[in-house]
This record gives sequence, C-alpha cells and structure tokens, in this order.
Amino acid sequence: MTVRVGIIGATGYTALETFRLLARHPEVEVTLATSRGEAGQPIASVHPSLAGRLGLEVTEFDAAVASQRCDLAMCCLPHGAAAETVRQLIEAGVRVIDFSADFRLSDLDVYTRYYGIEHPWPERIGKTVYGLPEWYAESIATADLVANPGCYPTSAILPLGPLLAAGLILPDDIIVDSKSGISGAGRTPKLNFMYCEAAESFSAYGVGNHRHQPEMADLLERFTGQQADLIFTPHLAPMDRGILSTIYVRPAPGVSLDATDRAIEAWREHYHETPFVRAVDHLPATKHVAHTNHVQLAIRRSGGRWVLIAAIDNLVKGASGAAVQNLNLMFGLEPTLGLT
Amino acid sequence: MTVRVGIIGATGYTALETFRLLARHPEVEVTLATSRGEAGQPIASVHPSLAGRLGLEVTEFDAAVASQRCDLAMCCLPHGAAAETVRQLIEAGVRVIDFSADFRLSDLDVYTRYYGIEHPWPERIGKTVYGLPEWYAESIATADLVANPGCYPTSAILPLGPLLAAGLILPDDIIVDSKSGISGAGRTPKLNFMYCEAAESFSAYGVGNHRHQPEMADLLERFTGQQADLIFTPHLAPMDRGILSTIYVRPAPGVSLDATDRAIEAWREHYHETPFVRAVDHLPATKHVAHTNHVQLAIRRSGGRWVLIAAIDNLVKGASGAAVQNLNLMFGLEPTLGLT
Amino acid sequence: MTVRVGIIGATGYTALETFRLLARHPEVEVTLATSRGEAGQPIASVHPSLAGRLGLEVTEFDAAVASQRCDLAMCCLPHGAAAETVRQLIEAGVRVIDFSADFRLSDLDVYTRYYGIEHPWPERIGKTVYGLPEWYAESIATADLVANPGCYPTSAILPLGPLLAAGLILPDDIIVDSKSGISGAGRTPKLNFMYCEAAESFSAYGVGNHRHQPEMADLLERFTGQQADLIFTPHLAPMDRGILSTIYVRPAPGVSLDATDRAIEAWREHYHETPFVRAVDHLPATKHVAHTNHVQLAIRRSGGRWVLIAAIDNLVKGASGAAVQNLNLMFGLEPTLGLT
Amino acid sequence: MTVRVGIIGATGYTALETFRLLARHPEVEVTLATSRGEAGQPIASVHPSLAGRLGLEVTEFDAAVASQRCDLAMCCLPHGAAAETVRQLIEAGVRVIDFSADFRLSDLDVYTRYYGIEHPWPERIGKTVYGLPEWYAESIATADLVANPGCYPTSAILPLGPLLAAGLILPDDIIVDSKSGISGAGRTPKLNFMYCEAAESFSAYGVGNHRHQPEMADLLERFTGQQADLIFTPHLAPMDRGILSTIYVRPAPGVSLDATDRAIEAWREHYHETPFVRAVDHLPATKHVAHTNHVQLAIRRSGGRWVLIAAIDNLVKGASGAAVQNLNLMFGLEPTLGLT
Repeated sequence: MTVRVGIIGATGYTALETFRLLARHPEVEVTLATSRGEAGQPIASVHPSLAGRLGLEVTEFDAAVASQRCDLAMCCLPHGAAAETVRQLIEAGVRVIDFSADFRLSDLDVYTRYYGIEHPWPERIGKTVYGLPEWYAESIATADLVANPGCYPTSAILPLGPLLAAGLILPDDIIVDSKSGISGAGRTPKLNFMYCEAAESFSAYGVGNHRHQPEMADLLERFTGQQADLIFTPHLAPMDRGILSTIYVRPAPGVSLDATDRAIEAWREHYHETPFVRAVDHLPATKHVAHTNHVQLAIRRSGGRWVLIAAIDNLVKGASGAAVQNLNLMFGLEPTLGLT
Repeated sequence: MTVRVGIIGATGYTALETFRLLARHPEVEVTLATSRGEAGQPIASVHPSLAGRLGLEVTEFDAAVASQRCDLAMCCLPHGAAAETVRQLIEAGVRVIDFSADFRLSDLDVYTRYYGIEHPWPERIGKTVYGLPEWYAESIATADLVANPGCYPTSAILPLGPLLAAGLILPDDIIVDSKSGISGAGRTPKLNFMYCEAAESFSAYGVGNHRHQPEMADLLERFTGQQADLIFTPHLAPMDRGILSTIYVRPAPGVSLDATDRAIEAWREHYHETPFVRAVDHLPATKHVAHTNHVQLAIRRSGGRWVLIAAIDNLVKGASGAAVQNLNLMFGLEPTLGLT
Repeated sequence: MTVRVGIIGATGYTALETFRLLARHPEVEVTLATSRGEAGQPIASVHPSLAGRLGLEVTEFDAAVASQRCDLAMCCLPHGAAAETVRQLIEAGVRVIDFSADFRLSDLDVYTRYYGIEHPWPERIGKTVYGLPEWYAESIATADLVANPGCYPTSAILPLGPLLAAGLILPDDIIVDSKSGISGAGRTPKLNFMYCEAAESFSAYGVGNHRHQPEMADLLERFTGQQADLIFTPHLAPMDRGILSTIYVRPAPGVSLDATDRAIEAWREHYHETPFVRAVDHLPATKHVAHTNHVQLAIRRSGGRWVLIAAIDNLVKGASGAAVQNLNLMFGLEPTLGLT
Repeated sequence: MTVRVGIIGATGYTALETFRLLARHPEVEVTLATSRGEAGQPIASVHPSLAGRLGLEVTEFDAAVASQRCDLAMCCLPHGAAAETVRQLIEAGVRVIDFSADFRLSDLDVYTRYYGIEHPWPERIGKTVYGLPEWYAESIATADLVANPGCYPTSAILPLGPLLAAGLILPDDIIVDSKSGISGAGRTPKLNFMYCEAAESFSAYGVGNHRHQPEMADLLERFTGQQADLIFTPHLAPMDRGILSTIYVRPAPGVSLDATDRAIEAWREHYHETPFVRAVDHLPATKHVAHTNHVQLAIRRSGGRWVLIAAIDNLVKGASGAAVQNLNLMFGLEPTLGLT
C-alpha cells in the first residue's frame, strides 16, 4: 500500500523536513505541494536541497484537487489560516494532520485569548485528538483530523506526564526553561532571525506570555487529571535546530529527593513500547538527537528539587517526525517506518 | 602614571582578553607574560591575534622577576596552581588580581569539598576581598590581593543582591538557569569543546554540583546577611562568549507580583554610579553586551514568579573587564578607563 | 539477503556517519564495532547519539572474529594503521572498503613522499580499485578491496573528469579552491579545531602541500589519460560538514567561453545513470546537500575562465555515503539503497 | 580638539561598528545620527548594544542641521542614495567620508554598467580620493570628500598593489577567491541571510559579475599604472564578520617561484609606516584580526603559482576602521587613535 500525501503550505521549514522524511518512507508518495506565494514553481526552486530528489510543481490549494490526489494532507500553515483550510479538506474527505495550533487546545476561550483571533472552526475545539503518538495512539489511528503537537510542549509534557500521573512530583510548582534552535521561528525573513543578529547570541523571549504555556498545562491536565501550575520561559539559542528543556520540579510528599530512579522507572514503564523516547544516564545534548525522531530524558537532583532534562529535534520529533508517526498510526503501518 | 602589569598564565582565553583590553588602556603597560609550557615563544605565537600588537616574549614564572617588572600581576592560572603562585607574588611585594576561585570563598571547608584539594594558602581564605567593583570598591582600592569574581556568579549576584538586600524577594526559593558560551571552558583541547561536538548543540552540565553554586550563595550571604537557598544549572550554548542567566524568584510577602518596577528601582538605585550595570526595557541578548564590560538586566512577571534576566560577556565583565575595573580602583584611575 | 557489516575504528566521525546510514539500510546489519581505545564500552558511550539505536559493544580488532561475523568490513582507521589491518582482513577472507588514503594512489613513490611512511602492503598499491561508483562501478562490484575516495578529491574530480575527458578544458591550468567543514579534521581533540578557535573564523591550510592534490592529479590522469596540472588550496570554514569547491579552468582551444552549456551537457551525459550527481542552475550551497549523498554542480563564466562549483557533504558523499554506494555495488543491491 | 561626527544612515552594521569605534575615540563626539525609517527613536532602540553607551536620538537627515552640528559626516547609505546626500553635505560645508560605492570608481561608464543607475553627482566621479590610508594619506588629509574603500577590494588590493608595483607578479593572470562573513550583506532582512539558511552553509555568489571586481581593477591600475586582468569570486561563509582572500598570481619573468621572500619584503617596505598591515609567517585566520583594524598577509608557493592570503575584519578595516583612519588623517590626529 502507498499512502498519497499532500503538503499544504510547502515553503517553510517543517514542510521541508516533512519532504525529507517522506522521501525516505517506503510506503508514501508525495503527490501534492501547495503554496499561495510560490504556485507554478518547481518545488526545488523553493527548496534547493530537493533538486533532483522531488520533481513536484507547487500549485495553489484546492480542496477538490487534494481529495483526488491525496489520502492524507499534512497542513503546514500558520494558525488561523490552517483551521479554515483544514475544514475544507475534512469536508472534502481528506484526512489531515495539522501542524498549527488551531486544534490543539481543549478550551476555545484560551485559544481566543492567546491567539487573538476568532476561531474559524470552533466546533472542533476540544474534539480533536492531540497527536502525541506515545499517549494517544488509539485515537490517532482512527482520527480524520490530528492536531500535531507543538515543539516546546513535546519536550515538556513527555517527561512531565508520567511523573505527574504516577504522583511522583507536585503539580503546582513546575518551571520549564526551554532553549530552542532558530528554525522554530519559521522561514519568513525577520530582523531577529537574521544570521548576524542570532549567531553568537542567546536570549529569552515571550517570558510570561508564550502560547505554548497553556498548551502544556492543558495537555498535562487532560492526561493526568491534575491542574499543573507551570511557568514556561522559551529562549533562542544560536543553532539551526533542537530543543533542550530544563525542568525544575519538586518530588511529592513521601518521595525522597534521592529517589531519582523512581522517575526513570516511570519513564521506562510508560515509554517501553516506543523506541523513540528513552531515559539516558548521560546529560543529553540536542546534537545527540539532531535529525532524528528520538527523545532523550535525564534526571538529576539539585538542592531541594529534581531537574529533568529533555532533548529533541524541534523539526523532527517536534514537528515532522511526530507527523510521520501519526501517519503510520492512521494508515496501520509499522510505527517506526521512515523514521529509523 | 603607567601601571606595569604582568600576565601570569598567558595562554588561555581570559589572558588573551586581558591582553586585548590592556592594549587599549592608556595608563597600562604590559611588561611580563609567563607560561610554563610556552616559555621562549613570542606571545604572538601563542595568540596569533596579537601579531604586530604586542611584542613580548613569554617567560617562565619567577616571583623575583615579577616584582622588578610589575606593579600588578593578573594571575590567570587554574585553581590550586593559582594560590601558590599568588602567595609568592604577594610575598615578593606584587599586588595581585587572581582570576582563579582560590580566594573567592569565605569558608575553607566549602573550598575543600568543592575543589577537592588542600588549599595552598588557607590563611587568606575569608580574608580576601571579592573583586566585584560594584559592591566592594573601597576594599578593592587598598587590597594587596583581589579575588576576581567567577563569570556565572557575576551574572547571578549582580541582579539578585540588591533585590535581596531590599527585601523584595524571598531568599529561600531561587533558581538560576544559566547559559554560557564555550570560552568559559578554557583553551585546553577536550572532546566536548571541539567544534563538531559543540556547534549546533545545547546541553546542561554540572547539574546539582557546579562550583559556582556555593560561590553565589556565599556572596549573597556576605552581601545581604541572608542565607540564600539557590539552585544553579549551567548550560553550554553553541557560541564563543556570553552568559545569559534566567533567574526565577518569588516576591516577598507584601510585594505585589505586578510591582516589577520596584525591582528596577532597586537596581537603578544600587548601580547608579556605574555605567556598566543597567536595567533595560528590552529582553537582553548576550550579543548586546558582547565584547563590552556592560551588564543588561531585565525583569518580567511569569505566573507566580518574577523572572530576572541578566546578560554579560563572560570573558569581559565575567573575567578580564572586571579585572581592569579592579586595576583602575587599585591604582586610583578613572573607573571606566580602558573599558569604553 | 542481509549484509553483515563490521566497522573497524568505530570512534570517529566517518564511523558515526556510517552507523547512521547503515541504521536506515534495509539490507544491512551492523554486527561488529572495533576500537583499540574504547573496547568494552557500549557504542552509545562513544557516540551518545546512538543511544537506543544500536546496542553493540565495542571490541578489540581481531581478524578471525571479523571473518566470522562480517561479510564486509568498513575500515575507518587513519592511513598507515589502515593498510596493515586491511591486509589481515583480506587474508581472512573479509571484503573491505577502506576509508583511508592507503590504497588510493597508483604510485608508491608519491605515497611515500606525501605520507612519510613505508607502506605496509605495497603490493596492492596501483592494484586497488578507487571507489568512485560513478566511474568504476564494474570493478567495484567484484573487488575484494575498495579504496574509498577522499572528500576533497570527490568534490574536484567529479566535475573535472567529464570535462577533461571530453576535451572541453585545458588540463594544464586548473586551480581548485576548496572550503571544508571542520568534521574533515577528525575527532581527536586539537587546539585548532576547538569551538572557540574555529567558530567565527576562516583560514587556509596545507597551501601547496596537501595530500589530496596528488590524489586528484592521479585520478584525473587515470580517468582521462591526460596529466593534469592542478593547484589545490584547502580551507577550513566554521561549519560542521560540507565541502564547496570553486574550480578555475580554461576552455580548450575551439571551445567558446560562453559555451558553458557544453560543460553541463558533458556532466548530464556522464552522470545520467546516477541520481546523486546533478548539474543545477542555481549556485549550490553546502546546505543544499547536507546530510545527503547528493552532489550539486554548477558553472559560470568569469572573465577568461570558467568557474566550476561543486557542493558535497564531506561525511556522506565524501566518505560514508560513497561507502554505502560501494557496498550496494559489491553485494548486488539497488544502487540507492539506504541513501534516499 | 574634539571632532563632531554625524552618522548618516544609522541603522546598518557599518553604522553600528562606527558608533562602537567612535565611542572609544578620545577626540571624537558623535553629535548626530540620522535615519529615514527610525527617526524619533533613541539610538539604543535601533541598536540595543548601545543601551547606556550612547544617548542620541535618531533624526531625519537635514543638511543644514548637519552643518551646524558636525565637522564630519560618515555617510552609511547604500549606493545611489548616498551620492545625493553627500552632495548636499558637501555643499553645506560638511566634510564627508562616504561608505558607499558612489565615488570609488574613476570611470562613470563602469559605474553605470555595474550599478545600473544614473549617477546623481557625476562631476565628482574620478575626482574623489579613494580612502585607502596606506596609499593615499596625503590626498585624504586635505579632502572634503573621501570614498571609503569596499571590503573585498581592501583585502585584495592591499596585498596585490605593492607586488604589481614592484614588478614581481604578472598583471594579466590574477584570481581573487574571497570568503566573507554575512554582515557584508547588510542588515535588511532577506531569506538568504536568515540564520537557518546561512548557518552551516557555504556558497559562492555573484560569480563573474560582482561590483567589486571593477573596483579592484580600477584601483590597481590607478596605483600601479598597469591594467590588471583579474577574476573575482566572492563567497558567503557562515560567520558574522571577516574576509579571507586567497589570491592566485604568477611571478613575473625573472622572479623565481621560490622567492616568496621578495614579496614579503615588498609588503614590509610598502607598509612599514602603518601598524595595521603586516606580513606574518603563519597562515592567517579571520579570527586573528576580528574586531581589529589589522590586516594579516601571507604568501606560499603552490605548483607554478604564488598563493597570497589576506585576512581582514570586513566591518573594521573593511569599513568603519578605515573610516576612522581617514578621520584621523583629515583632522590631523594620531593615525592609530581610537583603533588600538
């Protein structure tokens, strides 16, 4: 069986990473690439690294065409724009993995407050599976629409979820200090992301008001039933890709500060079926997981807290790789296909 | 007046940065450069960027020679090695600014526990001024020996000190999450600091046991009289120089979470005499202070905490620039000389 | 069929890249990883990015063990050390792809002059196929020993060979100005390749005496029958991987300076069977081929010369990817298997 | 004496570098900063690294105001825009150092062909001193208008000029292969110069048609009286600043290939009065001269040619540092003031 996949919004970095991964996937054919701005161009003009690897021409988006050519659409549009397009695709009978934040949250008010727009398809808010394959594999398998997780949330909730669920840590004193490569900011030219501004520089941004904070809190509550009081600070590191999250938590009453092995056990138990999430002894670096779908988790005691470290590639496990995992689940393929 | 300065341990990055700064200093002449491994070489063989700028030949260290040639020695040796050399210099009548950690702490037991060696000159532990010019200018001016501050501590205690002293924040719940460029690791070739390991990578290290944690706690207690419960996590960012510290604190009872302006006032009041420490409105990036002696401080509210951000250049304000400030104080020169 | 592969000398960057590529190869199992210094360690201790991906333990090299466990050995040792090990493997009946320079040259005197050692197995000099799959596929298919090409030579002779063979350019006035990422220097810690020396820096090295100059000249003569007068200057660029070679040539008498399309035709004709070598219209960047086995070639007229541009990934097409191509040829597999 | 300096076009990288250098200059006060787009902002909003260092507010350009406030204008506008502004300044009696290419060439036709616009002040073409202080100090000292040199030309003509003038090399077979940091491309956001496009990438651009080729040829002819046949290829290296030019030349008849010392002598003789241009034994790296006004030159024999290597900082010696040298000459100050 070959899954025919369309990439909607083909010009950005997550689209490019998706093209790269799908080129290696033995059961996928990319049959469509759309972009408003670049229609009529060969895809290799938009992404010179695809020269000689993918012969597709970029076209304007048309839901009817998509429904003829694709079994699945991977929608790489920004929030707001995504929801409307996703609705057309679903109504045309195309299954969708949506990379935007439009269907991730379970509460419309939170969406409106953080994204500042009226939601184009509010009926699906709270009724769309969050595409974290390690948590929601069954629902993903049968979904028409999957909300692909945010990159920062992936790096935070994968380590936090099992510890909260097992009652090992307090839910009301969590600090997530995350550091990301610059590809997370997208491919639209802006001063802050120019080489000469970003290279040899490190900075925080969105302190106290980043949109991934409510996404983390929402998912942890959905997954564990506990309301998490969570502070999140994203930073920009002078590198292309990768996220390292340093997470400060307090062991729950009755859990010894020295019993970090209990956290490791909880991770191993929860993630023993997936090859992609792994507790390691060393302190992970983003380079250890770069260009892979792997997550490395570690824990240390520091003073009266535990420090959790999670490393992912923001473009792979934080976006396109998770989408390929979801594709495999949705079409009954081997979970690791195209991701080794 | 010209201050004759010797650089002891001339091969590393802080030595090089000191050479660069002193080359611009109108009242200083560098008259000595010593190194065990490189004696006999012109300094430009050790540091090719000094070719045509400094004609000195590297020699073996000899306290008697130093006392003839120098009014001041800047000692750039590693801990342990430094203390013994510093003792010889002081006994030969040379004033010293010591870049190592050997004389920074006030408690010999803490030194022994964290540095794992017997201190070569324990009598001076607790009796040496900590060379933070913004706090201890008077003692520095008359000192024979100044313990130049550590880079991470500089980035943490400069923002924390005034807030603790003013009673604006709780002393018992402080998290310092610091990110440093790789020059902080020194110039000795090691696998972890090779370009191909460190570039495009981000990682934590020394989690829960880094030597700068007790230095921060010690200084905050000395400065404010309060014992600080402080967690410190250093990280390696893929850049040459710079430290950004993200510091999570809780306002003290009676201080509103929204009253971040009170913190800014405390900083402005405390640092109004120095041009080098400045509260800014934007979120500072390490690039904003790179190659300067400046510190940029900012504050934001995030959930139930304040987030303090401090940016410094680890080689300048975190090492050689602070040393030049100390030199200016010790020899009665303009505080900013050589540092504009 | 599954090809059982041993990696001899498992600690360096080309070994790591080979592990990565073979992990994706559907017809290969890595059954052996040897290293003198790291024997007894799990491979993930040597290369943390293999954690959870390859479970092998590193062992000491033993030709008898290798002959039991492997159909093919990929030898990633440095020159000199390689030749002796290769001899033992061949004598034990294991086919070998050798990454070193020991069997690339056809002239023993040139080897001795440039590598400064007596060759451990001189009988095979001049009698070993040069593993450039685009030129020597037939001989590679049946070889017991393949000399995997050097990275710089790959970037120079792929564009030059067809143009010389077609008589389009003069053989006696060729300048190859190459720029390489730092991984080409290997993984042994040395000052020059430390992050703080190499980042934000660009330099030439080996001007007039680099060992890849005679390798280029030798191969061009073998391939075209013409003696090439070729100047080669390698440079170090502040990046992990990639080679861009800028090559200055003169059109042969009777070939118009404006007829750059004739060069493009020669490339397309010569490489039409391989998906990996491609003439492109844009000016290639190393990033366009990073982490792939692809080569992008371009040509421009500049004054009285043609300027050829070739971009490769030094670790893939310049080393491990070429080796996988050779493996596929040696075992009758699809030429692109494991390399899409 | 204090020279009052205005920066016209204050938003780009050369303007920022000029602010930095002038902040250290003991005889200069920056009294004006203009920009069309940013008028009304404090300069620290445009360049956060100037926070607390320069209190100026950005204003609209007005020649009359400039003539009241400034003894000298440093014009950092792009070509075309610069010429018209320069004319107004000169007519208002303000001396000008112009960073653009508008007054560098001696031939109006060449300007029109390469820059594609009608020159706004053609009368000054060919009648403006080229601000290379090492060649034209006397004319610069008395000039009302100085055309500050291009960055690539500085790196090429400084090494070539003395060798051509001494008859040591052939003028008709010169290849300049230059590699530049990305700051040379300016501060306007464009896709190619985004971090994620430029980092870990190396590429050529403008092959065969870059505007600095005629500037090099023009200056070499003016300086030596010989017409130079010169091929120039610029490249983009993944670094903020620095240019390394690798220059291939042939010794003139009667000059031995091995007599590279004669080239070194010619350099030393020609540049013995300036501390900024220096022949070195090692192979220079851009990092050796980063953030300085220094030029390092080296020579090697390679096959039948000489290879010249020149390293500069494109923003300092290639722009703002040269301008400060010119300022010192124009106002009778010490040649190295503000540049040590």
